[in-house]
Amino acid sequence: MSDRREFRDLAEPHEAHEAIASLELTPEPESVPLREARGRVLAERVDAGMDVPGFDRASMDGYAVRARDTFGADEADPATLDLVGAVHAGSEPTVTVEPGTCAEISTGAVVPDGADAVVMVERTTETTGEDGADAIEVRTSVAPGDHVMFAGADIAAGGRALGPGTEITPREIGLLSALGVDEVPVRGRPTVGIVSTGDELVRPGGDLHSERGQIYDVNSYTIAAGVEEAGGEAVLYPHAGDDYDEMERLLVEASEECDLVLSSGSTSASAVDVIYRVIEDRGELLLHGVSVKPGKPMLIGRLTDSAYVGLPGYPVSALTIFRTFVAPAIRRAAGLPDPATATATGRMAVEERYSEGRMRLMPAGLVEDAAGETLVYPVDKGSGATTSLVEADGVVVVDPDTEYLAAGEEVEVQLFSPEVRAPALFAVGEDDPALSRLLDRVERPRYLPVGSREGLRRLRDGVPDAAVVAGEPGRDPVARPDPLGDAGTEPAEVVGEWHREWGLIVPAGNPDDVTGLADLVDRDLRFVNRDSNAGLRTALSTALGDLADERGTTRREATEAVDGFDRAVRAHESPARRVLAGDADVGLGLRATAARLDTGFVSLGTQPVRVYANPSRVGKPGVAALREAVADGADVFGSLAGYER
Amino acid sequence: MSDRREFRDLAEPHEAHEAIASLELTPEPESVPLREARGRVLAERVDAGMDVPGFDRASMDGYAVRARDTFGADEADPATLDLVGAVHAGSEPTVTVEPGTCAEISTGAVVPDGADAVVMVERTTETTGEDGADAIEVRTSVAPGDHVMFAGADIAAGGRALGPGTEITPREIGLLSALGVDEVPVRGRPTVGIVSTGDELVRPGGDLHSERGQIYDVNSYTIAAGVEEAGGEAVLYPHAGDDYDEMERLLVEASEECDLVLSSGSTSASAVDVIYRVIEDRGELLLHGVSVKPGKPMLIGRLTDSAYVGLPGYPVSALTIFRTFVAPAIRRAAGLPDPATATATGRMAVEERYSEGRMRLMPAGLVEDAAGETLVYPVDKGSGATTSLVEADGVVVVDPDTEYLAAGEEVEVQLFSPEVRAPALFAVGEDDPALSRLLDRVERPRYLPVGSREGLRRLRDGVPDAAVVAGEPGRDPVARPDPLGDAGTEPAEVVGEWHREWGLIVPAGNPDDVTGLADLVDRDLRFVNRDSNAGLRTALSTALGDLADERGTTRREATEAVDGFDRAVRAHESPARRVLAGDADVGLGLRATAARLDTGFVSLGTQPVRVYANPSRVGKPGVAALREAVADGADVFGSLAGYER
Repeated sequence: MSDRREFRDLAEPHEAHEAIASLELTPEPESVPLREARGRVLAERVDAGMDVPGFDRASMDGYAVRARDTFGADEADPATLDLVGAVHAGSEPTVTVEPGTCAEISTGAVVPDGADAVVMVERTTETTGEDGADAIEVRTSVAPGDHVMFAGADIAAGGRALGPGTEITPREIGLLSALGVDEVPVRGRPTVGIVSTGDELVRPGGDLHSERGQIYDVNSYTIAAGVEEAGGEAVLYPHAGDDYDEMERLLVEASEECDLVLSSGSTSASAVDVIYRVIEDRGELLLHGVSVKPGKPMLIGRLTDSAYVGLPGYPVSALTIFRTFVAPAIRRAAGLPDPATATATGRMAVEERYSEGRMRLMPAGLVEDAAGETLVYPVDKGSGATTSLVEADGVVVVDPDTEYLAAGEEVEVQLFSPEVRAPALFAVGEDDPALSRLLDRVERPRYLPVGSREGLRRLRDGVPDAAVVAGEPGRDPVARPDPLGDAGTEPAEVVGEWHREWGLIVPAGNPDDVTGLADLVDRDLRFVNRDSNAGLRTALSTALGDLADERGTTRREATEAVDGFDRAVRAHESPARRVLAGDADVGLGLRATAARLDTGFVSLGTQPVRVYANPSRVGKPGVAALREAVADGADVFGSLAGYER
Repeated sequence: MSDRREFRDLAEPHEAHEAIASLELTPEPESVPLREARGRVLAERVDAGMDVPGFDRASMDGYAVRARDTFGADEADPATLDLVGAVHAGSEPTVTVEPGTCAEISTGAVVPDGADAVVMVERTTETTGEDGADAIEVRTSVAPGDHVMFAGADIAAGGRALGPGTEITPREIGLLSALGVDEVPVRGRPTVGIVSTGDELVRPGGDLHSERGQIYDVNSYTIAAGVEEAGGEAVLYPHAGDDYDEMERLLVEASEECDLVLSSGSTSASAVDVIYRVIEDRGELLLHGVSVKPGKPMLIGRLTDSAYVGLPGYPVSALTIFRTFVAPAIRRAAGLPDPATATATGRMAVEERYSEGRMRLMPAGLVEDAAGETLVYPVDKGSGATTSLVEADGVVVVDPDTEYLAAGEEVEVQLFSPEVRAPALFAVGEDDPALSRLLDRVERPRYLPVGSREGLRRLRDGVPDAAVVAGEPGRDPVARPDPLGDAGTEPAEVVGEWHREWGLIVPAGNPDDVTGLADLVDRDLRFVNRDSNAGLRTALSTALGDLADERGTTRREATEAVDGFDRAVRAHESPARRVLAGDADVGLGLRATAARLDTGFVSLGTQPVRVYANPSRVGKPGVAALREAVADGADVFGSLAGYER
């Protein structure tokens, strides 16, 4: 253990930015077909190689005339011109407009020789000339150039059309089309090799052996998507274990093929040490460790011919460090402008304290209060959690000197993208399969399945819009209408309610012949419970208390007699899955779960599930949408065994 | 001409939105690999199919212990535990932690049976037990669960991971990766067929015959890029002429292969009539013409099995109508959220009047004034211009009842994208090849080559930051420091100056043996001039005046003696190109142009080119950047014949 490396002398964030900026990422320019040029960046100035339009062009349907012939004409005294022919768009004129004559012309056609203006068809009348031939009465006078777009009037040959560094949007594609440019000189996209390390990683879709500690590789695809979002091209390499030779071979291969190599994946100090040694042996380490949380263990250096950045292993840390330090460098290398400022200003809904002297990139969620003001709350599920990737809306940058952010303090949230908005509904509480389906009918909901008890606590604090509670709450739920105000709490309002049947999950066929709660207490059955925030567990505890009362014992004695009462798992299906896996004989669960997973079920009762809304947010569209989803949810409740409204 | 169709009973914009919304565009959902899922939209809810993590996982490097064995341990009184083995990430534990023992464990490894917590390595010391075997001193007490992430703690099997309608960003890819999902159910992308009509169109890259009135097809690639930006898939069809059978065949083919067919291209009423008949014969026309400018001639309907929208032919109109009415429908069909609100608020720099009772979508440019406030000016180069696509930053929606926007009035500009910002430099004036190169060294410049005279006029009004003027201005240039203030004008400041040699462009070898200005006046040579805004023309007029003085005649007599004095073309290279094409014997131009195009040249003198800045904006970074580019531009001036600073 003695060679495990500690991070000392952490670099400041600005030093990390500078170190990355000192690496040469910029790829060679290339040429792409116009059809594929959207989103690319011009590598050089494009001058017009031709006049646009390339000829004097009629911009109206009408008649090509010599303007002088119409001078003085008006409704009362039209000029009559002999019609000598017609010119259509896409054809070469076969007529010349001599004095006293005109030619029919359609929009976009070449103005024929002799003519210097076009009269709109609406200001003319077909007639017959003195000689019986076709003629046109012109009831207005026009000036030379009227309704004519002269050659080069849009842009002339040799003119500057677009400058280097211009990002190509549909509008630039329009101008390049007009110039006939079909191959566009663009900045190259930096290629970014991604090497995930860690013997425990399995690529999504592969077979996972959890008993061996395998997990799916989160960082490879996540960082690859981030690279592409930033304008780079991601190249995925196979996983590297912690073996020096394998790591060296992969990293060097990637560095020879790419402009930038990113490693990520393993969080163990030993893997980081191996990478560290590879970089020192085959390249140059510029920076080791940066004073930012999350993300401390970051490496920056060069590896053979390419740039190298080592990202932390935990997904939230890896993506945060990538976004903060690496994505801007990729954008610059691709020639892309800084992304649109995407920030939201809001007030902290709770106090948050910081103990360490590092810059914090605090993941934060947004919620709109009753007044439409934005509240900001920290999202911190621990560095290993991947769900926090989608439970946050952005990041608050907290200065190293900041000891705490007070509730009510204004903060700026750097949104993950300009499209991010506060969810329409922010609810918390019980994990329930009917609710999961009902939420599908609410646009942009956020639901944190923290359990009924924790849900009630958070509702009281006034941050979420609503809490979903299974079972009878001990006391009437309340919520602070304004989490930052002094007004105290008010009773929460029930905006939806249904009932679900709960009981004991047993293997299919009920091999142990479990008939009820007494079996759990009296027999030697391995039980799996839910955690203490779950409404299901509250129901079980209450039922065990009733049983104890009947028997003249205490609830504590009853729960202690259950083998596994404290073996708590997290979600509504978890106990059933333990039973299915043979790890337990009995689990706490729902009839709906037993039906879905084809297990046996011993009913112990039904319990209500209620949606309690903060009274100040009952009118919020997301809350109204959930209320409506419950009211209209007969199909959902009908499709789940043991459910009714 | 009698069957040319007039648009009457124009629909209101909201009716056009409703008509498009009534068309069924939504494609079937599909499944895509996770690696390619970025930017797509989930078609259905994704529940966790497994626990994440799938096992009780160590979240620190250290020792797996039974928490109870550490109770009471501290620095002064450590607990000593026998070391029974090690567990590494990615391996199945081979040890069990019995009371009084521990196992080395690395971050991410499976917590072995018996253990319920992990002690950080930093709080331990390697030692030797009483029996001489390896042991570990634990200098802290831990609680059950410390530094352990329990199975399912991130998300548990059966839990709701992501809801339908979620847009897939790197963060969602992270969560899906953690769940091992490698095929993602996503909303289909609507396929949009694009049929450009018009016999005059040539696809960019093809051979263009301007004499036949051919132009490059702007709309196909532009609208295709817009379709892809909105989340659709564009399919380009060959050009259709105005022939009914061909148009019908192409439109029907497109409608059978796509969810939506867009036609665009021809602006002539006859082509519109043909399309109109095809839609009426083979589908249903819901709406014909909408009361908006630009864009009146818009069609909405159904065609065999698909939706159909006919866009106007002019590129600016086509793209504006596409963005306003069609792109939102494509986004909805793809399940994408409305794009981020991208607006800028500014004050009108000039008055703009509106005559027609139609909603105006006024293309507008942005410029920042000395105080950093945003000024808005209309961009209107006529409906046929493609350069206005890139000279505007967004659109101001002007109500049909609005007769004018006053200078100083606050307006909201709908930006073309959230990335759009006011250019760093907004300059106007002479068309000059050195300037064109110098602008490459300024970030985000906008330059409108309106000529020296018009440039001076606009500088005076105070809208642009600077004007580039060739030749000696008649009087000292001035600018309003605040275009909306009452303070009047102040002298403009020269921030850059260089000189260029000008004269007469003649064919290579000077076949007519032109020696000077007198030849133009005295001989029968076909001349091509520049327009009256060009500083080159002013120089020529002055020189002709001097010649007339010498001869005792008037300047007017001199100019009238030049055959083609009024034949004015637009850009600095245009006269030379006419000479090269054999359309003229002599053209007005620069020595640099003659050198570049390998023509002959008869020098008539040199003229200064000066950058005059609005005195209030001299400190603006873009103005400073141009000043610096001129100061550092020795290489540019050195590379252009006849230039010096």
